[in-house]
Order: sequence, then structure tokens, then C-alpha cells
Amino acid sequence: MTAFTDAELTRDDFLGGRLRLFQPVSGYRAGVDPVFLAASVPARAGQRVLELGCGAGAAILCLGRRVPGLELTGVELQPAYADLARRNSDSNDIPIEVVEGDIASMPASLRQRQFDHVIANPPYYRAGAHSSATDAGRALALGEGTPLALWVDAAARRLVHRGYLHMIAKADRLPDILAACDSRLGSVEVLPLVPRDGRAAELVILRARKGGKAGFRLHHGLILHKGAKHPGDRDHYVPEVSRVQRKAEALAWPNPG
Amino acid sequence: MTAFTDAELTRDDFLGGRLRLFQPVSGYRAGVDPVFLAASVPARAGQRVLELGCGAGAAILCLGRRVPGLELTGVELQPAYADLARRNSDSNDIPIEVVEGDIASMPASLRQRQFDHVIANPPYYRAGAHSSATDAGRALALGEGTPLALWVDAAARRLVHRGYLHMIAKADRLPDILAACDSRLGSVEVLPLVPRDGRAAELVILRARKGGKAGFRLHHGLILHKGAKHPGDRDHYVPEVSRVQRKAEALAWPNPG
Repeated sequence: MTAFTDAELTRDDFLGGRLRLFQPVSGYRAGVDPVFLAASVPARAGQRVLELGCGAGAAILCLGRRVPGLELTGVELQPAYADLARRNSDSNDIPIEVVEGDIASMPASLRQRQFDHVIANPPYYRAGAHSSATDAGRALALGEGTPLALWVDAAARRLVHRGYLHMIAKADRLPDILAACDSRLGSVEVLPLVPRDGRAAELVILRARKGGKAGFRLHHGLILHKGAKHPGDRDHYVPEVSRVQRKAEALAWPNPG
Repeated sequence: MTAFTDAELTRDDFLGGRLRLFQPVSGYRAGVDPVFLAASVPARAGQRVLELGCGAGAAILCLGRRVPGLELTGVELQPAYADLARRNSDSNDIPIEVVEGDIASMPASLRQRQFDHVIANPPYYRAGAHSSATDAGRALALGEGTPLALWVDAAARRLVHRGYLHMIAKADRLPDILAACDSRLGSVEVLPLVPRDGRAAELVILRARKGGKAGFRLHHGLILHKGAKHPGDRDHYVPEVSRVQRKAEALAWPNPG
């Protein structure tokens, strides 16, 4: 499949309506994760940002909406998603360059270039561990054909010295991600995202720096939802999270010092 | 040095005075860490427990005080600390067997045996990274002659199937510890210990299981001290921590399910 038809798409609000994205009805659909990822990145106007596996563009377009003046590039394996990312770029008036290609075998046009920031929201499920994929595109987007170590390696190769990788992933992948960073990236910091008090972390955001020399830091987890119950989570974010998800604000990382 | 003289020792209260330990004036002195470690272990009467690098015995004696009826064994490289551990065992009337030896080359008497629980509080500082050691024993206790992977490997070898390792370490060692657990132990859970709100984790307690198949879990951090200031920390523990440190209670781990 090289493109979705209009009947296969919905158009969904992100950042409180500041961003509207076409997404496949039955395929990989962005949730809160790309929004958290984009909100974590301390990018400044004029910097170059690469997203590995940009899908329909949710993370990189969230970042572009928050920080004007970035040079945004996404690489995406699946032509139909790359096409969607271009369409979402146009319809939101946030220019991004979308390159079709496999991060495990980086397109030559990208191998020549380096970036101040690389971001990634790698697929969640190990191949074969998940059976609810309803189409081939979603299966591929969720199925992790590419090991995490390759994502980290691809990021490290594309970063300038002192450039940042930000990655969001399920918390159970943290050991694999840390192992992948070992010797490739330094100054690793992890911010756990905890659904509510009394629960374990569900997601982690990792920040690492090319050439970074600081020791590993594990920040105290950010609790996302108020209270212990589950009465329609979207309406019960803690204020900081609500500002990130609904108002396109940056996610303030704890002081690393 | 094979033994400390009385002039080289202090006698210090742990667990609100339920345990009193001889410790060297200038050498490795136990703090809150071995108390947290011991409080984390779900050991039951009749089970066998091995501490790797037991020093003067703080962790294993804390565990013995909380849970009667355990078979307690410590292995310690330095004869003077092994001697202190025996003395502390006697003076507190908590029987422990102390074996002198190097965990990197496990004494034959221990290589024949397996344990339901292994605990360890490995030295904190990388060799050469720390200059404040004031004597050779402290330097050795703090200097990490033995890589963390060897500690985990020694633990895995001594555990029964389904047996537990508990380890406490500085948070910046977490990537190394997770890498060491990979393929040797499973069902890894990490409980971060956070000095106070707004700070990063300073310590982590790791629980892992031989033959465990569950995915990695990162629990929400336990905040140790109330408030944002530092007005004599020992008197401002949160209640749960105070019960662990002063009343020999177990540290309740979050539900892993």
C-alpha cells in the first residue's frame, strides 16, 4: 500500500486543536506518547531535528508547532505513512522534509547530514508478541522489525557532537535501551511517566547526549493523572501534563545538576 | 590488617537500637543502605540467605533481626570485617555464618550450596574515581575491585530456581546492573529511592529472580524525606521510611502485577 484513501483516514486534534492530523482508521494511531516526546526536546530556532520512524508525523509536527524556525526532517519506512506525514505537514503549515527509507540502512541523502536533535518513538511490541494488529502497516509500525539497538545506533550516527537523542518507550524496554546507549551516547537521563500514584512507570522518556560524560540519572517519576481511580483519564491530567498535552507547552525536565 | 582494636571501633545503633553494631571509626561505615536492603527481602523462617560482601554484617543482621529463623551466611573478602561481622553476630545474638573469601572466586564451601535469597550492597565508587578513602580497608570496601557483573553472576550461581536477588546501589549504576542481570536473572524490578520531592533518585533497590520470566518493571520512586529543605534529614523521614529505619519493619514493595 502506497497511500491511504480518504475513507481510510480520520482527522484528529492534538495539542488542544493546535495540530490536526490525518491518521489511518485502522493502523498506527498516535496517542499521548509523541506529544510527550516532542515536549521533552530543548530545541531552539535554527536547529536541525531528525525523527526516526516519523509515521504520520505526530511527534515532529508537535515539536514544530511548539518551536518555530526548526529544520525538521523525518525518515519513514512505509510509503503510505510518509505520504500522510507530508499531507499533515502541508495541512498544518509546518514544513517538514520526509524521506522514505529504512533506518537500519539509512538513505544516502541522510547519511551525509548531521542533526542537533534526533527523536524517536520506536514501535512497542516485539515481533510475534502482539496479535491485535489489524493491517500490515500497523503490524509493521508496532512489530519492531528493527531492534532498539539499531534505533540508538542510527541516532548516534546522525547527531552532531553534543547533540541530543530523545526517545519515548514502554518502561519494560528500559534495560534494552540503556544497553543500546552504552558506549554510543552519554549523560543519559530517564524520566519515568507514571499513570497515577501507586502504579509502576508505564513509559519512560530517555535523554542522551553524543559525547556526554555525565553519569546516568534516574529522575523521580512524573505522575500523569490525579487520584487513584480511572474516571475518564483524559479529563484528569495533573496540571503540568495538561499544559503539555493540551497547550503545546514544553515538558520541564528536572534539573540534571 | 586482620582485626580492628577496640580503639578503632565505635558501636552504633541501627533499627532504633534493636541492633547495635561495632564499626571501624575510619573505614566502611554502614548508613541507611543496608537497612533498606534488608527491609526489602521477602524472606520467611527456614529460608537460607547469603550476603555477598557482608562487611561488618549490617544488612544481614538487620534481616535476621526482622525475620527470625533464617539461616544466614555472609561472605567477606577482608578478614578484619569478617571478624567484626562475627563479633556483631555474637553481641546481637543473631547467628550468622561468616565465610572469608572472594566472590570473584567463590570459596569451595559455598560453591556447593544454594540459597533462597542473595543480598548485596556492592561498593559504590569505581576504582580511582574517589580519593577520600582514609584507609586501605575502606578503599577496598568502596573501591570496587570486583565489577558489578561479577556480583550478579555470583548471586545467580548461588540462587535456587525462583530464588531472589536483592541489591542496593547508587542510581547511576543502574545501567550496569541491568546489563549484568540480562540473561542471568529475570522478573527484574527496580524501586528508586528519592531523597526528597524534586530530586533525582539517589539509590535504587533491584529485585530479580532466577528463572523469572516477567518483564522489567520500574516502580514509582519512594521519597525518603519530607519537604524541600534539609533541616537534619534523619528526623524528617516520611512515615514509611521511618518505620523501616527505626522500627525494623519490612519495606512494602509495590504490587508487581
